Amino acid sequence: MAVGLRQPGKLYPVLGIELAVTAAGIRYQGRDDLLAIHLSEGAKVSAVFTQNKCCAAPVTLAKAHMAQSETRALLINSGNANAVTGELGLQNASESCAELAKLMGVSAEQVLPFSTGVIGEQLNMLAMSDGIQSLVGQHLVGQHSVGRFSDDNWLLAAQAIMTTDTVAKAASRQLEINGDLITITGITKGSGMICPNMATMLAYVATDANISKKDLDALLTRGTQASFNRITVDSDTSTNDALVLMATGKAQAEPLEGYSLEVFYQQLENIFVELATSIIRDGEGATKFVKVEISGGSKQSDCSAIAYSIAHSPLVKTALFASDPNWGRILMALGKAPVQSLDMNLVDIHIGQVSLIEKGQPAATYTEEAGKAVFVEEEIHIHVELNQGSENFHVWTSDLSHDYVSINADYRS
Amino acid sequence: MAVGLRQPGKLYPVLGIELAVTAAGIRYQGRDDLLAIHLSEGAKVSAVFTQNKCCAAPVTLAKAHMAQSETRALLINSGNANAVTGELGLQNASESCAELAKLMGVSAEQVLPFSTGVIGEQLNMLAMSDGIQSLVGQHLVGQHSVGRFSDDNWLLAAQAIMTTDTVAKAASRQLEINGDLITITGITKGSGMICPNMATMLAYVATDANISKKDLDALLTRGTQASFNRITVDSDTSTNDALVLMATGKAQAEPLEGYSLEVFYQQLENIFVELATSIIRDGEGATKFVKVEISGGSKQSDCSAIAYSIAHSPLVKTALFASDPNWGRILMALGKAPVQSLDMNLVDIHIGQVSLIEKGQPAATYTEEAGKAVFVEEEIHIHVELNQGSENFHVWTSDLSHDYVSINADYRS
Repeated sequence: MAVGLRQPGKLYPVLGIELAVTAAGIRYQGRDDLLAIHLSEGAKVSAVFTQNKCCAAPVTLAKAHMAQSETRALLINSGNANAVTGELGLQNASESCAELAKLMGVSAEQVLPFSTGVIGEQLNMLAMSDGIQSLVGQHLVGQHSVGRFSDDNWLLAAQAIMTTDTVAKAASRQLEINGDLITITGITKGSGMICPNMATMLAYVATDANISKKDLDALLTRGTQASFNRITVDSDTSTNDALVLMATGKAQAEPLEGYSLEVFYQQLENIFVELATSIIRDGEGATKFVKVEISGGSKQSDCSAIAYSIAHSPLVKTALFASDPNWGRILMALGKAPVQSLDMNLVDIHIGQVSLIEKGQPAATYTEEAGKAVFVEEEIHIHVELNQGSENFHVWTSDLSHDYVSINADYRS
Repeated sequence: MAVGLRQPGKLYPVLGIELAVTAAGIRYQGRDDLLAIHLSEGAKVSAVFTQNKCCAAPVTLAKAHMAQSETRALLINSGNANAVTGELGLQNASESCAELAKLMGVSAEQVLPFSTGVIGEQLNMLAMSDGIQSLVGQHLVGQHSVGRFSDDNWLLAAQAIMTTDTVAKAASRQLEINGDLITITGITKGSGMICPNMATMLAYVATDANISKKDLDALLTRGTQASFNRITVDSDTSTNDALVLMATGKAQAEPLEGYSLEVFYQQLENIFVELATSIIRDGEGATKFVKVEISGGSKQSDCSAIAYSIAHSPLVKTALFASDPNWGRILMALGKAPVQSLDMNLVDIHIGQVSLIEKGQPAATYTEEAGKAVFVEEEIHIHVELNQGSENFHVWTSDLSHDYVSINADYRS
């Protein structure tokens, strides 16, 4: 059902990054479910994690490890989220890191753990251990082509972290800055913020650009605000969300700065947006890909509140599913948004090129036929102009379909 | 599909209140769709209205009329919400009030208008006018049994204001205070806050108790907080919501005060809760009636935020629909609630009598079978004990079913 989403195209290797996958049988059978990403020495790593107060053991541990040491590897399993698993869950995540670290010749704190899948079950540590050994093989890594590690495994990596995703999600770009060919490649997974069963949002983006840790943190914050923090399938925030940005510096002698850094950022933001919107396109039960754009607000926080009020409204989402130009529902969701002041008599609303509302009233030119024509499209752009200031915000979302209910009502039963 | 909801029982007449209904053909054919409620002279009236900034013409006008004059009649139509109808909408609401007022020998400001139904269409004023004349007949009211007015029309009134409701909703109690027999009778409608199509929430409760305007306002505020402000079907707030409380004083010589007023309030709150929960029981597509109770919070606002976070979560609601004891989703919704501090390691969760979570971890005694047994019930009580203070809050909600999607996706098409 993914909306306008194809298999990833060419995924360029990133100098200094090697990936290995294996079928550990943690929960799924007959498919890869364990991924390790090896980073060259000196690589910089930034990460953002779920704000959910009920966060999973690997999230707690990954944060602690990042604070303690330079990261040299990520270990990611699908099928089990290792969430609400208490002390034993933390211990299991810790042991897995230690096991991979030992085989790779680094310390346990240099490995970051990530998990996605069912909540409330302990990890199968036998399967994890077998999987880790299978990833690394009999040799230490750090040289090329030992164990299962290869710099060309990005697509396999994207596939190994899938849960309820219907399509593997990845994006890759190359650009030349100051004569250096720089690569940015990333993978993500997620199909609903359906934390407790399956499909938590994870994303890993790597580049061989040379970027200072401080700049990398700033790029990650800015890029996240422009992409992953603007998507919503069902308003539910996972316990395991994580987004990791890695820069090995292998493609450049000198760190990026100034204008070059900005050029790099623009491509990075493109990758982030491509990955983030691919989650929405593959949203659970999604039949529509919808951009909700609010402009002309007096505060950006107002624009954001209104955008989410519309994007989260079950009535707007079911109307989108029905291809029904039920603009009253958009007005209702606009009117209930928690903003201090909003003059409905100034508001204009367009759907695609069709003017729906002018100055708070149905547009004189609007016809039900014109509305139908834009609502029947797979990709819909709802644009609310508040005419009350110069701030703006947009979010991407999907519709609420029978399949969403089926997927989430039938999953465990 | 209404959950545990039967046709209303005996509805006691309220001294000083007469009701008339007619089939005006405003939108529906072959059923009553217009209701007038006549109040005796000196009756006190309090009302609360939708907070949606996109509010309908009758809401704007009813507020203005209440501020100007003593209310002597309410005029309520179903089938058309008279919302997003601009100046003409206001004019139509005003003219309807004036027409009823003239026939009743009162001023236009003494009539409060209410509408529920489709948004964005102008009222059929010919149908309204014919309907109003049919309600009042050839005679002035104010004496008994002129036109269609009768003090025994409460059930017909509840039916006339229905839109997507599947069952008429009404409640009635009598109590004796200081030797006076006092009646409280009320009706309501709503089945989703689906403002823009159909089914806005309306409620009218009348008593013949003698209550000062100041006390009536206080009772309404307190009662609303305990009932109508604690229900959610889909988090969407209608443009037309209104709750009106009327006290004619006909059953008592002296105003209620002190302990007597409190005794009266308890019965009033019961009526409010019965009416409010009947909306949830008849929620669109509802197969479950769910109470979400949060206790042990350090602030009531935290308890409220957590209760709504759980009650609004599409993932919790689909798990309820599936009778799936997917407690991870409840923890997820708890963890994402916008509260400042929350120690997950202190939290206990019960579903009915079954202990699910103890100190943030799956309870040792919990079994999937025990969970299934309570989740399969039609009425479910989710109780989250935060163990962080002494505040509490609860809300009532329904599940998210295929029928909810069908009702809201298929309605207009």
